Amino acid sequence: MPVLTLTTDFGLDDAYLAAMKGVILSVAPDCRLVDVSHGIAAQDVMGAGFVLRGAVPYFPPGTVHLAVVDPGVGTERRPIAARIGGHTFVGPDNGLFSLLLDPSAGPGQAAAEPEAVVVLDRPDFWRTPTPSATFHGRDVFAPVAAHLAAGRDLTEVGTPVEGLRRLHWVQPLADEQGIQGWVVHVDRFGNAVTNVPGELLAARLAGREFKCYVGSAILNGLHRTYADVDEGEPVALVGSSGLLEVSINGGDAAQLLSIQKGSAVDVVFADRA
Amino acid sequence: MPVLTLTTDFGLDDAYLAAMKGVILSVAPDCRLVDVSHGIAAQDVMGAGFVLRGAVPYFPPGTVHLAVVDPGVGTERRPIAARIGGHTFVGPDNGLFSLLLDPSAGPGQAAAEPEAVVVLDRPDFWRTPTPSATFHGRDVFAPVAAHLAAGRDLTEVGTPVEGLRRLHWVQPLADEQGIQGWVVHVDRFGNAVTNVPGELLAARLAGREFKCYVGSAILNGLHRTYADVDEGEPVALVGSSGLLEVSINGGDAAQLLSIQKGSAVDVVFADRA
Amino acid sequence: MPVLTLTTDFGLDDAYLAAMKGVILSVAPDCRLVDVSHGIAAQDVMGAGFVLRGAVPYFPPGTVHLAVVDPGVGTERRPIAARIGGHTFVGPDNGLFSLLLDPSAGPGQAAAEPEAVVVLDRPDFWRTPTPSATFHGRDVFAPVAAHLAAGRDLTEVGTPVEGLRRLHWVQPLADEQGIQGWVVHVDRFGNAVTNVPGELLAARLAGREFKCYVGSAILNGLHRTYADVDEGEPVALVGSSGLLEVSINGGDAAQLLSIQKGSAVDVVFADRA
Repeated sequence: MPVLTLTTDFGLDDAYLAAMKGVILSVAPDCRLVDVSHGIAAQDVMGAGFVLRGAVPYFPPGTVHLAVVDPGVGTERRPIAARIGGHTFVGPDNGLFSLLLDPSAGPGQAAAEPEAVVVLDRPDFWRTPTPSATFHGRDVFAPVAAHLAAGRDLTEVGTPVEGLRRLHWVQPLADEQGIQGWVVHVDRFGNAVTNVPGELLAARLAGREFKCYVGSAILNGLHRTYADVDEGEPVALVGSSGLLEVSINGGDAAQLLSIQKGSAVDVVFADRA
Repeated sequence: MPVLTLTTDFGLDDAYLAAMKGVILSVAPDCRLVDVSHGIAAQDVMGAGFVLRGAVPYFPPGTVHLAVVDPGVGTERRPIAARIGGHTFVGPDNGLFSLLLDPSAGPGQAAAEPEAVVVLDRPDFWRTPTPSATFHGRDVFAPVAAHLAAGRDLTEVGTPVEGLRRLHWVQPLADEQGIQGWVVHVDRFGNAVTNVPGELLAARLAGREFKCYVGSAILNGLHRTYADVDEGEPVALVGSSGLLEVSINGGDAAQLLSIQKGSAVDVVFADRA
Repeated sequence: MPVLTLTTDFGLDDAYLAAMKGVILSVAPDCRLVDVSHGIAAQDVMGAGFVLRGAVPYFPPGTVHLAVVDPGVGTERRPIAARIGGHTFVGPDNGLFSLLLDPSAGPGQAAAEPEAVVVLDRPDFWRTPTPSATFHGRDVFAPVAAHLAAGRDLTEVGTPVEGLRRLHWVQPLADEQGIQGWVVHVDRFGNAVTNVPGELLAARLAGREFKCYVGSAILNGLHRTYADVDEGEPVALVGSSGLLEVSINGGDAAQLLSIQKGSAVDVVFADRA
């Protein structure tokens, strides 16, 4: 019973997601459907990459991940399937899956190559040989993902090609005095997740203290969990994704500290102060 | 492993949906649950019809669709199950399922009759012989849908009756000069879906060009997909549901062009201009 | 094929929920995942209790309920699993599960003791012996819940302890003249659910009429269902959770009558007026 995950910017209110699931279950009645997120901002490929990065490593090897954030639907951008780290990905070749190369590393550490990539050029595996020009998710990607989940090989559903279109995580800048990073995600709790890997921070700190400037806050040093500070107090910690995160214990850091996606995060080591 | 879909106006935050799923899995532990949408506006039967119309045709024959948008819960409106096009529908007889007759046609083309309709008058198949007067979804419809998914026949769970209560899609008006339609749905992307079937438009146009007046926009002619126009430009196309749709490439047409559900759409053929 | 439900305050947009599901399916590929709600207000343990109370009784015995609303993650609050009423619960020991003792009674009637409680002190059943200090949902609770769903016994995954941390529902106050209660939940429709059990109301009324004062409304007597009053009219009834509920037929009572969670509800029996 293979697992097939779905990630889109479709939301949950329209029929689009259910149409894809109907197509999938028509092809592969036994596959296990798991929603990753359908709340990706419209056409936000990087946002989808961040969410997939936080979910994919926890699924069993062999999982098929269908991810459709597709600003170029119906144009000549390639429909692809790729194998990366023992997982299979299906969707438009818009750079999304390249963000997942080496997902265990922090953003910016992408290094490995995909094990295989095919372009989906076999209409026999589509829902119809004349897919809608505006909904390849339903007519191309969902049925192909279902066939892959049902046991078809990548080379059956498409023709091998070299490489993926590449996107890159923004890299934090580090020198002897500190690290300049950015907020890459604000979660439902208002936690501000930065692009500063905990390992980078630890390596550069080498035991020193630091101050962290972000939004309207100045934070002192690193804590282990939210409740290590009093309720209502801001706290910097390495979150569950391995990245430096700014939070408020029991509160919404983004709102209360004027932090948004894209806000600069300035980590200053103690011996500069 | 039969598929059972759920469509409601319950939202996802309350316990109502989970209570129904618990009841279903108590009766039919093997059935596959798929959410269609629970974001239907409260008591919006036509809105539920539009969403079901976009999802039902993609599910395998034999799927059971539980749809509970039930302003008249607890009154004498009939609880029913119906077979339409090889699918089974369970819910209140409020006209919703009549909107699905001939779902492959555009709205307004409903013509066929249901294959069978039963009124749910067998408390043996309910969760309790004394159902809550305000939650037939949990106490009547969910358990009956589960019994049907588990293989019971329509005539076991209810008594055959003639016909469904009928609702009708609003029809576009067409003459030699053009077509007058309406926006029937705005999706998460801000695409404005109209009630003008692509086939009607093509047949009437007979190769001519047209202008489309909707909200604050005037659109020229039909394109194939969003990216056929520059980013930020409005575009008219026949969307994935087979209906004329007004969008903005990479933007929110409803917001930027002042379009809402109910907005008039005036298609004017070229030789009138 | 055991059922495993999930209740959190994580929302549906981030990767957190999917990460937990990936972990679960890695341990127990056959278990059936059902979302109860992920729209619990951040860190609202009582709110989670209200939602669970409306869902748990409808699931089959043996269901495993994973519920993670965890303001104290990473602190010394205990990770536990408990058996209550033939169901198994997994999450932090923050009082949430104590709210479910005797779930068939109204809030406030909790009386029974859990059948068993264990503290989760066996890292062999965790995802990793060094769990993230901020995401025990993914690293401790999800894998333990999966092992329990896959057939492990409570005493395998943890060490028996006495009792749960207790929280208590606020109790309505009743005397000969009436009942003073509070709104404990406003649902998606704007129905205001109070903490006044229908049984208490019936027993105290003993056939008399009553007036109900809540928000800007005065309601006369009890009806059976929404449509027992004209559209747009307020109505008091005993809702599907067995509690006194104030609604508007076809409208949003909370909004139109200025009712919120926490609003007082004053039931005055007829012979006092």
